[in-house]
Amino acid sequence: MSKSPEQEHPVKAFGWAAKDNSGVLSPSISLEGLNTSFSLVVCLENGEEDVTIKILFCGICHSDLHTIKNEWGNAQYPIVPGHEIAGTVTSVGNGVTKFKVGDNVGVGVQVSSCRNCDNCKQDEESYCPKMILTYNSTYYDGTRTYGGYSDSVVVDQNYVLRFPDNLPLDAGAPLLCAGITVYSPMKYYGMTEPGKVLGVVGLGGLGHVAVKLGKAFGLKVVVISTSPKKEKEAIERLGADAFLVSRDPEQMKAAIGSMNYIIDTVSAVHPLAPLLSLLKTNGKLASVGLPEKPLQLPMFALTMGRKLVGGSNFGGIKETQEMLDFCAKHSITADIELIKFDYLNTAIERLSKADVHYRFVIDVANSLGTATKL
Amino acid sequence: MSKSPEQEHPVKAFGWAAKDNSGVLSPSISLEGLNTSFSLVVCLENGEEDVTIKILFCGICHSDLHTIKNEWGNAQYPIVPGHEIAGTVTSVGNGVTKFKVGDNVGVGVQVSSCRNCDNCKQDEESYCPKMILTYNSTYYDGTRTYGGYSDSVVVDQNYVLRFPDNLPLDAGAPLLCAGITVYSPMKYYGMTEPGKVLGVVGLGGLGHVAVKLGKAFGLKVVVISTSPKKEKEAIERLGADAFLVSRDPEQMKAAIGSMNYIIDTVSAVHPLAPLLSLLKTNGKLASVGLPEKPLQLPMFALTMGRKLVGGSNFGGIKETQEMLDFCAKHSITADIELIKFDYLNTAIERLSKADVHYRFVIDVANSLGTATKL
Repeated sequence: MSKSPEQEHPVKAFGWAAKDNSGVLSPSISLEGLNTSFSLVVCLENGEEDVTIKILFCGICHSDLHTIKNEWGNAQYPIVPGHEIAGTVTSVGNGVTKFKVGDNVGVGVQVSSCRNCDNCKQDEESYCPKMILTYNSTYYDGTRTYGGYSDSVVVDQNYVLRFPDNLPLDAGAPLLCAGITVYSPMKYYGMTEPGKVLGVVGLGGLGHVAVKLGKAFGLKVVVISTSPKKEKEAIERLGADAFLVSRDPEQMKAAIGSMNYIIDTVSAVHPLAPLLSLLKTNGKLASVGLPEKPLQLPMFALTMGRKLVGGSNFGGIKETQEMLDFCAKHSITADIELIKFDYLNTAIERLSKADVHYRFVIDVANSLGTATKL
Repeated sequence: MSKSPEQEHPVKAFGWAAKDNSGVLSPSISLEGLNTSFSLVVCLENGEEDVTIKILFCGICHSDLHTIKNEWGNAQYPIVPGHEIAGTVTSVGNGVTKFKVGDNVGVGVQVSSCRNCDNCKQDEESYCPKMILTYNSTYYDGTRTYGGYSDSVVVDQNYVLRFPDNLPLDAGAPLLCAGITVYSPMKYYGMTEPGKVLGVVGLGGLGHVAVKLGKAFGLKVVVISTSPKKEKEAIERLGADAFLVSRDPEQMKAAIGSMNYIIDTVSAVHPLAPLLSLLKTNGKLASVGLPEKPLQLPMFALTMGRKLVGGSNFGGIKETQEMLDFCAKHSITADIELIKFDYLNTAIERLSKADVHYRFVIDVANSLGTATKL
């Protein structure tokens, strides 16, 4: 029996993994069956088009929590989460033309796609039905993919992003998921006309970037949140123009018909009707949260104001690069709390309580060494 | 006390009215308080910009049923329904430039609007918050509006449509509501790219026109219906390319991801999830029915395929004229059952059971005379 590609080219990486749905991660060295290491997303190190990346920073996305706790029902343990990866190229395959050793690069939510479907052909790989996610996914050759809570990753050059020179790697990393997830619907649904009013529902990892993008597009941005205590920060720190407490009926009533666009980042089940009432005629609500149950859609509200509710799922590679360049140009980064691996489980617990301003980023290179010596 | 405009210019019309929520109509002559007549939509006959129209035909729209039965809770009796009006100009005010005596004209869902709001300024009077509906509405001067189940109507020239020469008045009348209500979202949501696949949900008054419009736009049209018995007619008579029985799980499964657009004409509460599954990535579902309760919107389906659900509420005057011209060019009319007033209550009962192919139209001029002599 011939050896598998993994056996032929054993590339080892070290990181932190979830081995069950407890929500707790531990250094991969202690995981049973992993033999002190786990295979990489693409096992053929320096295959023709492969780029090996030393991971410097990785953001902690709310999806990481959903996945490690198996809340979406698709977890296959062990899972090394992380799809907001920033790092430096350490080696490249012979066919790699886009990157060279030393380049600052990023990896987002996906590491491959079929390249043949209509979506792939239109630079919309994020809708490829056969896409390979950065972690908890099975590559075309049958190997598992592991994410950015680790020291290195090997990714096909066509799914690697270039970090613009002036975009910091730590605060820029979250843009690879949180950033593109709000940028893409703003572009697709035409929410970029200067002077128009954008409502941003939920001021978390995605929402706070949406506020900054909205301002960069020249919009008037209103944050819609359940927490009055976020008002000062939303306006003074993030640059929002106004703040609306969604639990205050008077405030909500006064804002009826005042918005052109809404980006709804809330993943919990929540009522759409009050949000739709905030929209003007032809108003658009783009939902990027992933409530596990259906939401109630009031059809009269939709019809009488020709409003729409649309979804959006991160973005293609070309658009992600465009977003990074846009953010660099407008000095947009995420507001982050930089942590070390020994704080990871605490961070995950805090994130589950929405206690973060606004994104945890793991300082991978400066903390993994210690952790893996456990 | 000065006389009201109505008292100054007593213009009388005769027709059929609902005087309570029984769903039964009777000749206006027998209605209490109406004194053998009722006032017109615009009471100043031949006011500067007014056009007096002798009504020849009027379609029976499902909204008429909802309204006379007070199912939307806004009925003010007596109600003379009818907003699919076709007729001939019999006199014009001094300022009327668009029409002359003898012209064939139509009146649709609205007879006025504020002319000052953003929507009015953009030819989208159908979204004017102060719009005046053709019936069961209160005009700016406080008088009530009465619809097309009557012998004449007076309407401001800016809200009157011109019937193209080759568009028959009887089968063309329903286009003024049923036609524009499906044409407008097809245009607004970009559902007109030749070769794309359009699903039409519900084969009633609106749905059957949507099939014809879809074919005229060069689309492949699939009718989605609960009734297998409609298949033959949908394909052979209306020109649909395919037929899908929504209650057949096998057929629905086989059609997953096969459509670009869906026009959903169903007014009853119904599941959106199976319809959304029929859409390809970037697929759009426009809802023109008015379910009284919210529908369940599965957000994963929306997000993963960047799909949208949008509403649409008939169309502006300019677009309605464009639609009439388009229909004339492509020989599109409604399939109608022409009835006389003495059949009106039977027709309404049949319509409430969806027993019509596909629109009742009242032959007003040839049957009102007899009825009003009751």
